[in-house]
Amino acid sequence: MVNVYGMNRSPAHPAVQVTYPDWVDEVVDWSRPCRSDEDRMKVAIAVARANVERATGGPFGAAIFEARSGNLVAVGMNAVVRLNNCTLHGEMMAFMMAQQRVGSYTLNGPDLPEHELFTSCEPCAMCLGATLWSGVRRLVYGATRDDASLLNFDEGPVFPESYHYLEDRGVKIGRSVLRDEARGVLELYRSKSGKIYNG
Amino acid sequence: MVNVYGMNRSPAHPAVQVTYPDWVDEVVDWSRPCRSDEDRMKVAIAVARANVERATGGPFGAAIFEARSGNLVAVGMNAVVRLNNCTLHGEMMAFMMAQQRVGSYTLNGPDLPEHELFTSCEPCAMCLGATLWSGVRRLVYGATRDDASLLNFDEGPVFPESYHYLEDRGVKIGRSVLRDEARGVLELYRSKSGKIYNG
Repeated sequence: MVNVYGMNRSPAHPAVQVTYPDWVDEVVDWSRPCRSDEDRMKVAIAVARANVERATGGPFGAAIFEARSGNLVAVGMNAVVRLNNCTLHGEMMAFMMAQQRVGSYTLNGPDLPEHELFTSCEPCAMCLGATLWSGVRRLVYGATRDDASLLNFDEGPVFPESYHYLEDRGVKIGRSVLRDEARGVLELYRSKSGKIYNG
Repeated sequence: MVNVYGMNRSPAHPAVQVTYPDWVDEVVDWSRPCRSDEDRMKVAIAVARANVERATGGPFGAAIFEARSGNLVAVGMNAVVRLNNCTLHGEMMAFMMAQQRVGSYTLNGPDLPEHELFTSCEPCAMCLGATLWSGVRRLVYGATRDDASLLNFDEGPVFPESYHYLEDRGVKIGRSVLRDEARGVLELYRSKSGKIYNG
């Protein structure tokens, strides 16, 4: 991508670089369309599981698909500790990578197909807010806030009204798809005594 | 910074690069400690104003200070359109840049002084959630949600309970510091017919 604006390259302000870990192409099949909700959730869960197994971050993964074709646009995995960046939850990385790929700050742009976010665990307050700005038309999660709380992961100020707010603006919500499988990744993380940042 | 993890350098997955616009060192005096809340807010507002005047983004700026010394650690400015990235509100860029600079995913780390976020406008749901994860001990804003709404900027699912949630976890809140000056930047943006993304 060519950026038309001047960028500051001063060594005093190095760019923050948001990157996938090096295993991503071993785990993700970018070419296979995923037709069903379960197929799509499996990608998010596979990314979450790999992130734990390869010790590159917390037990959370996400994937963004074109709703109709089932084409995979981007994935994201928790990178808070790996990249020293509290904003890099799985959903956030997926939004950033997807928007860079399509060249738009919204996935709801006029020449774009509808997009959907699949995330292995119910989003925190930051990620739920970003979901609204991202332009995805549907949010589907696997494990629930309660499942994450059992690991002492805090989801922040999310209330039933928060979901109503998104639904009122046309974002559909899908809940607890492959919940047991998604919760299994949380339990794997706990069994490895993984770090609970933001505990 | 040296990253100890493997990074994916495949041309299929270029890194997302988060950068300041090239005017930042003309506008920001990095060496002068800011002692008062008003002094600190002036930095956030100056960044917001420059972002509008130089047409590099929306009318929102932020700055992170060490609470006691008043040393400036990072600034942030809205870069949603400039960098095609819906997550890059001013507060988010400030968190990312500050955490990269101190080398920690939390500004509340054991060997770090207390940090405070100053933002020219009341944070949206995403940024309020991120404030909790960032480790800042205090959030101070200038213009209010209502001021932003007059420009048709949506702040997302933020409720009084959202602030209580942060306060219960030890984050102090300062409201409407230099509100008129901060609102002036919003009005400048409107007078230039600036783009209302996420409207």
